[in-house]
Amino acid sequence: MLCERLRDQRYQERIVSAEEAASWIHDGMTVGLSGFTRAGDAKAVTMALAERAKRDNTPFKINVYTGASLGSDVDKVMAEAGIVHKRLPFQADSVMRSKINQGEMLFVDHHLSHTAEAVRAHVLDPIDFAIVEAIAITEDGMIIPTTSVGNSSIFVEQAKAVIVELNMAQPLALEGVHDIYDLEEQGQREPIPLTAVDQRIGLPGIEVDLDKIKGIVITNQKDSPSTIVQPDQETQQIANHLIAFLKDEVKKGRLTNSLAPLQSGIGSVANAVFNGFLDSDFTDLQVYSEVLQDAVFDLIDAGKITFASGCSITLSPAKMEEVLGNFDQYKDKVVLRPQEISNHPEIIRRLGLIAINTALEVDIYGNVNSTNVLGTHMMNGIGGSGDFARNSRLAVFVTKSIAKGGRISSVVPFVSHVDHTEHDVDIIVTEQGYADLRGLAPRERAMLVIENCAHPLYRQQLREYYAEALSRGGHTPHVLEKAFSFHTRFREEGTMQEHALATPSR
Amino acid sequence: MLCERLRDQRYQERIVSAEEAASWIHDGMTVGLSGFTRAGDAKAVTMALAERAKRDNTPFKINVYTGASLGSDVDKVMAEAGIVHKRLPFQADSVMRSKINQGEMLFVDHHLSHTAEAVRAHVLDPIDFAIVEAIAITEDGMIIPTTSVGNSSIFVEQAKAVIVELNMAQPLALEGVHDIYDLEEQGQREPIPLTAVDQRIGLPGIEVDLDKIKGIVITNQKDSPSTIVQPDQETQQIANHLIAFLKDEVKKGRLTNSLAPLQSGIGSVANAVFNGFLDSDFTDLQVYSEVLQDAVFDLIDAGKITFASGCSITLSPAKMEEVLGNFDQYKDKVVLRPQEISNHPEIIRRLGLIAINTALEVDIYGNVNSTNVLGTHMMNGIGGSGDFARNSRLAVFVTKSIAKGGRISSVVPFVSHVDHTEHDVDIIVTEQGYADLRGLAPRERAMLVIENCAHPLYRQQLREYYAEALSRGGHTPHVLEKAFSFHTRFREEGTMQEHALATPSR
Repeated sequence: MLCERLRDQRYQERIVSAEEAASWIHDGMTVGLSGFTRAGDAKAVTMALAERAKRDNTPFKINVYTGASLGSDVDKVMAEAGIVHKRLPFQADSVMRSKINQGEMLFVDHHLSHTAEAVRAHVLDPIDFAIVEAIAITEDGMIIPTTSVGNSSIFVEQAKAVIVELNMAQPLALEGVHDIYDLEEQGQREPIPLTAVDQRIGLPGIEVDLDKIKGIVITNQKDSPSTIVQPDQETQQIANHLIAFLKDEVKKGRLTNSLAPLQSGIGSVANAVFNGFLDSDFTDLQVYSEVLQDAVFDLIDAGKITFASGCSITLSPAKMEEVLGNFDQYKDKVVLRPQEISNHPEIIRRLGLIAINTALEVDIYGNVNSTNVLGTHMMNGIGGSGDFARNSRLAVFVTKSIAKGGRISSVVPFVSHVDHTEHDVDIIVTEQGYADLRGLAPRERAMLVIENCAHPLYRQQLREYYAEALSRGGHTPHVLEKAFSFHTRFREEGTMQEHALATPSR
Repeated sequence: MLCERLRDQRYQERIVSAEEAASWIHDGMTVGLSGFTRAGDAKAVTMALAERAKRDNTPFKINVYTGASLGSDVDKVMAEAGIVHKRLPFQADSVMRSKINQGEMLFVDHHLSHTAEAVRAHVLDPIDFAIVEAIAITEDGMIIPTTSVGNSSIFVEQAKAVIVELNMAQPLALEGVHDIYDLEEQGQREPIPLTAVDQRIGLPGIEVDLDKIKGIVITNQKDSPSTIVQPDQETQQIANHLIAFLKDEVKKGRLTNSLAPLQSGIGSVANAVFNGFLDSDFTDLQVYSEVLQDAVFDLIDAGKITFASGCSITLSPAKMEEVLGNFDQYKDKVVLRPQEISNHPEIIRRLGLIAINTALEVDIYGNVNSTNVLGTHMMNGIGGSGDFARNSRLAVFVTKSIAKGGRISSVVPFVSHVDHTEHDVDIIVTEQGYADLRGLAPRERAMLVIENCAHPLYRQQLREYYAEALSRGGHTPHVLEKAFSFHTRFREEGTMQEHALATPSR
């Protein structure tokens, strides 16, 4: 079996235990890990490293770079062990999040297409070890990744040494799904030749010198499944509004019935929106996105999606079994690319994507907060939302209009952290309706967002804020001393609602 | 003389007066004008239109799209005449600015590379007339622009009809400097083949059907010159800090002695920075920017810059005489492109530019406000700063640390409007020093910005804010109820300084 996966005799001499590989990693080092939204993460060496920290009494800290979030509790265990000095470019673990927000570890929130450039340009601390999961290493020296590509190719290229986690639990059928295209340095590169979603422009694996592979660790552990959240009434309404808007765009001649390549962020709202396409009249859809979730494969099965390009596959337990167990039938309909390519401004703008991402909160002028709860506490990170929103044909942001049983309004006078500016936000959709902000000045946007997107519980409060702002004048009217009044009221009274106690019936 | 410029007999039949051409434009129409930062603007028909509005008693409103700001008081006169309903994507006239801020006209603040996509995708109101300045119309049906290209090619392509202002005051020697490359619709286009600053990829003029040219107006008026502001002590210090930083990058091996293609925003700080290169050791510099200002030509004359690509040439009176009077000697060192190409994310990222733009204010985490004074009042617009900062190799923002004699700090706890988020800002430079924010988490950034960039008058206030914010915790610590305290104090007390009256000596 092993010779199927280690296709040169010499690789076998590099096999070591996870503990031994972990022993090479010392205080102050930087590691670059495979892994993107729980898929294809380096699961063994990182765990052994955290175990060592717990066991020994020699404290150490390392920098951890990845593609995006990790699964298998790797981020949790590393955070608990206190071994992470700096983490980038994305995470989604509750323990790690809490350490970040307590100031116990540092987190750098990158656009997901930017990390590779920063590594290539030697702007970040240099990478000592790339640790990447693989299904095989070929006879001609290529590491074949598993369920994600993420930043693995740039990490392998730039690291001083490479550790491969050869995961026997990942099916060999994945071979051929990857398309690895490496960029030269800025100023010395050609145009990226990709002009169609289903085009292949690179190699089936990551090229690496045998000498650079310091160790190979044999593992046998599936990816952590995604925690699937079924569509609820609100997410269903969001999907319906978005589909109504897209139908209208088709009617106006701006889109055809196969729309344009679709991108969606991860999460239940995005998944619900994609589910909404199942019953729609749209046909021959294509996906050019980061994470391929359950709904993408449902739509492939239903013949609605003809091709999906991503940089990772993250599925629920049942769907994982179904897709990875029969991957041959998906291989001509799916490709996995490095996240620098899946999220590249050049490609996103050329193809003219429809980008659908989730907002934490939006403001009356269309600015979006994707990351910092109440302006201060990091949730997960901006991810690829900025790469896509800035460069897409249509930048759509979706959110439920209220959270915490109505105590939080997702529509506020001024977002408490700005990830996407008014220049980059085209359409805002909540379960209440949608606001099409294209070509509108701030004074045209405010009432549209309030009346179409805010929850009725909060509309009057927002109207009153805007009326007072208007009395002050300006291109973007505001009452700065009250701009964060929703947020400060929540902090003090536990709700953003004015007079919530006096008029509970509102 | 005219036959040199109208190279097909049939064009002569289209010659009309500016008044007649203006008479074709009615209430509710949309016009697309040539013009980018005072250069190559349509000067005659727009003025005749404003005259008509003043003369007649029939009120009308039109939408006005341009490349960027206009010169020759066109924006001023149109604003005074009250004929503009909506204006995009940039303006810089004080009368128009005041009308926008009073809510008397609408302004849409676009990334300058985005307007062409919105026009091409029929997202904005359709253009009834493109009105573009030209030095000539060729025998094979090409409009040769003058000192700017701006959005002229997309306006001509998409407008229902075209009016050409043939400007006899613009030298025929400009012919050959333009490189017009048109993009197909999103989803149907090839990679833009540009891989070097001095490469030509298009045509020397804008192709147009004879039938589409409804009128040709003969004019004879130079561009408005730029109001040159000589470097002062602070802008000189900013230039020195930036050059010291760049030298250090060369020393670290991240840049060579010819740096990388340079972009700079318009204005005195940017001009001073470019002036700083004159006495530097850097050689064989290249420019890939929007506006080519005086300093670019000084650097060409000094042999420091080998090639400059822009989308307009905006000069002081003396420099205009010198450059436009002897343009043949610059022709092999300069190219003018459509702003969609000069500002295209695909090219900016491929070439790896060093982008230098001006901030109105910055905050302790590196967010930048480029547009709205005190969060509400529009200055000029975001211009190309977002196109460049997001996609460049190095996104540099420069500003003096104080304004209004110290009553305003350009470093604040939370910018009152966000145009560039923390994800897109690498280096902040003031006359105090610079902060290199690359790879830093928010908690690493705050003290660096305060200590290196803020004016000593404000450092203690900022330290106190940050200390209180830290006590609240979070990834991006803030005290939201005090986040805009600098701005509200200025509104109430006329200064951002705490206890300014009690301790005037600070």
